[in-house]
Amino acid sequence: MRKASWIRSPHCSGRLGGDIGAARGDGKSMTKKTIRTMEELAREIDVSRPTLSRYFHDPSSVRERTRAKIETRLATVDYVPNFFAVNLNRKRTRLIGVVIPHLNDIFQTNLINSVEFAAGQSDYKIIVQNSHNDPQREVAAVETLRSMNADGILISPLGQASDTAMLRRAEAQLPVMLIDSRAAEGAGGFDFVGNDNGQSIGLLVDYLVRSGHDPVFLPMPPVNMSALERTEAFRAAMARHGQVGEVLETGGNGYDWNFEAYGKDVMSAFFAAGRYTRATVLCASDRIAMGALKAAHDFGLFPRGKIGDFRIAGHDNDVLTRFLHPGLTTVEQDVPRIAREAVEILLRRIESPRKKGEAPVSRSIPARLVLRESA
Amino acid sequence: MRKASWIRSPHCSGRLGGDIGAARGDGKSMTKKTIRTMEELAREIDVSRPTLSRYFHDPSSVRERTRAKIETRLATVDYVPNFFAVNLNRKRTRLIGVVIPHLNDIFQTNLINSVEFAAGQSDYKIIVQNSHNDPQREVAAVETLRSMNADGILISPLGQASDTAMLRRAEAQLPVMLIDSRAAEGAGGFDFVGNDNGQSIGLLVDYLVRSGHDPVFLPMPPVNMSALERTEAFRAAMARHGQVGEVLETGGNGYDWNFEAYGKDVMSAFFAAGRYTRATVLCASDRIAMGALKAAHDFGLFPRGKIGDFRIAGHDNDVLTRFLHPGLTTVEQDVPRIAREAVEILLRRIESPRKKGEAPVSRSIPARLVLRESA
Repeated sequence: MRKASWIRSPHCSGRLGGDIGAARGDGKSMTKKTIRTMEELAREIDVSRPTLSRYFHDPSSVRERTRAKIETRLATVDYVPNFFAVNLNRKRTRLIGVVIPHLNDIFQTNLINSVEFAAGQSDYKIIVQNSHNDPQREVAAVETLRSMNADGILISPLGQASDTAMLRRAEAQLPVMLIDSRAAEGAGGFDFVGNDNGQSIGLLVDYLVRSGHDPVFLPMPPVNMSALERTEAFRAAMARHGQVGEVLETGGNGYDWNFEAYGKDVMSAFFAAGRYTRATVLCASDRIAMGALKAAHDFGLFPRGKIGDFRIAGHDNDVLTRFLHPGLTTVEQDVPRIAREAVEILLRRIESPRKKGEAPVSRSIPARLVLRESA
Repeated sequence: MRKASWIRSPHCSGRLGGDIGAARGDGKSMTKKTIRTMEELAREIDVSRPTLSRYFHDPSSVRERTRAKIETRLATVDYVPNFFAVNLNRKRTRLIGVVIPHLNDIFQTNLINSVEFAAGQSDYKIIVQNSHNDPQREVAAVETLRSMNADGILISPLGQASDTAMLRRAEAQLPVMLIDSRAAEGAGGFDFVGNDNGQSIGLLVDYLVRSGHDPVFLPMPPVNMSALERTEAFRAAMARHGQVGEVLETGGNGYDWNFEAYGKDVMSAFFAAGRYTRATVLCASDRIAMGALKAAHDFGLFPRGKIGDFRIAGHDNDVLTRFLHPGLTTVEQDVPRIAREAVEILLRRIESPRKKGEAPVSRSIPARLVLRESA
């Protein structure tokens, strides 16, 4: 059976998709006849139902003249095949399921866009599910994608909160791969591509230490394993400088993914107590830094609009970060590469599943330092 | 046929969904046997295949004892039914398709979340497609949702760029409803729920006029009909004050949905030429205001961190707006209500399609003024 699904987007490459797209794209009138079923379509085109079916599974399997006839007439009608019927007995749906933990997050949306682009390069579509930082909804998201016969799943998991057994059961059916954040300690065995937090936090610590006061670390709420990794990376980097890194005590559990509110509230409380107003605060993400910046402005830590003793840095270089004031020093995650390599590995697993005992792939992608005014 | 799909999320209400969910939720081990087909499942549960099928379509259609047996044993296996098989001949998939124009947009993600929540209240799932501000991809998005037999579609359309004929053809198959932004002039005939731009811009203009200089308007790039509506609403509101409203000439076409970059670049160019540095700039969205604020900071328009002669206001009260500095005066769109009413109308249309000649519903939801320091 031909692997390429012919229901793909008109703008995609690929013979048939392209033809349908071109026909539809210019169809600015309502004159096209709407066709509902394959039977109707076969009658309309004047070919047999089996021939039409063969054509859709593999256009080269019908005679050249028949194909030309089908394609010419297809362009004159409005027919959208039933995805369920087409995919019911297919080996491949050419769908990649993507599970993310929080949608109101410009890093996650950028990741989704990058995964969609990378998948599209191989003529795959994505279906996104939001786990809403809820272990039960994470289970439901994976089950929905399994029920839709996604060919594989990319998940940014909740870490210690995830039902890892569920992920393993899913993996018995289809490749399940982690992106952006890892599974909990001891829940190894999954392929992974994400940022190299050791390297990226190291870059920031090295820069901050050599350019001013030693930084303190404002950690992420413990929403996933990246949160823990970045804190450990900070401690390790400070240790390389012969220092014990100070990690701020935030009690940040209640904020979940509301990072801006967390950054603002936590730092406002410190500033109100006169603490850290002349510190260098390394934030575990730009979104946290956005909230901390707001607190710093509220407390007048940038006299005359300039940077004073208070310095701040972030992590990610989100698409909004360059619009913060003062400009935020940060590290940029290589999101396009993370997405590209994740899709590449997943597609390989779809073609040939990991063998028993074969070690999972684990790729940590380096980030680059972005210097702006804030530190 | 029973309408509720039993593949819904475990956390949803509903007898069977709940049972499965409870069983899966506590299944932290790998010990559950994985079942792939209905045949296997029937054997495992020790009922006939037709009985099992009847049970899934309507649990009350099998004998009480059989039902108990099925439910007890279902809880002990790992079985995810095939979405395609379940929905192939169903009248309802309980899927609502959602098409948005741009995902790296905190207003859009908030809208998606609100629609997902509203749909979930009626036990519907959503599938989101991103049209990437591209008319061809908008066509493809709608076709994908049609092919998946979505019960209805909520689309935030590209306006004048949209292939309206395509939307009409889709509407011949399933309810298609506009959310957030309207179809182009003359392309009426679709149900619509969105913000009342006349009211919301009016609130801002009235407030700005009575509290200081008359505002000038920084319009959105012409990505959709809301962009045009807000500009017209500004002119109308100024006219009520006996003024000809000044709309900034921006040449903003190339920016598409990159509103922050647009706001920053446009205002930087004006400020560099010494223009509008003492103006009151009403921005057509908070995202534009974020960019304009950045430009204002870069040009030192907030001396000593205070507001000077330059005033600025936004529109939307996005989830990030309260973290901007200075705090941005804006209007808050009632996104939960927009989503709730849109889903409500769409579900009504799904049950009973609009009759020929019946006027479409058009609901404009009022916004509320949010005063902060920026104006």
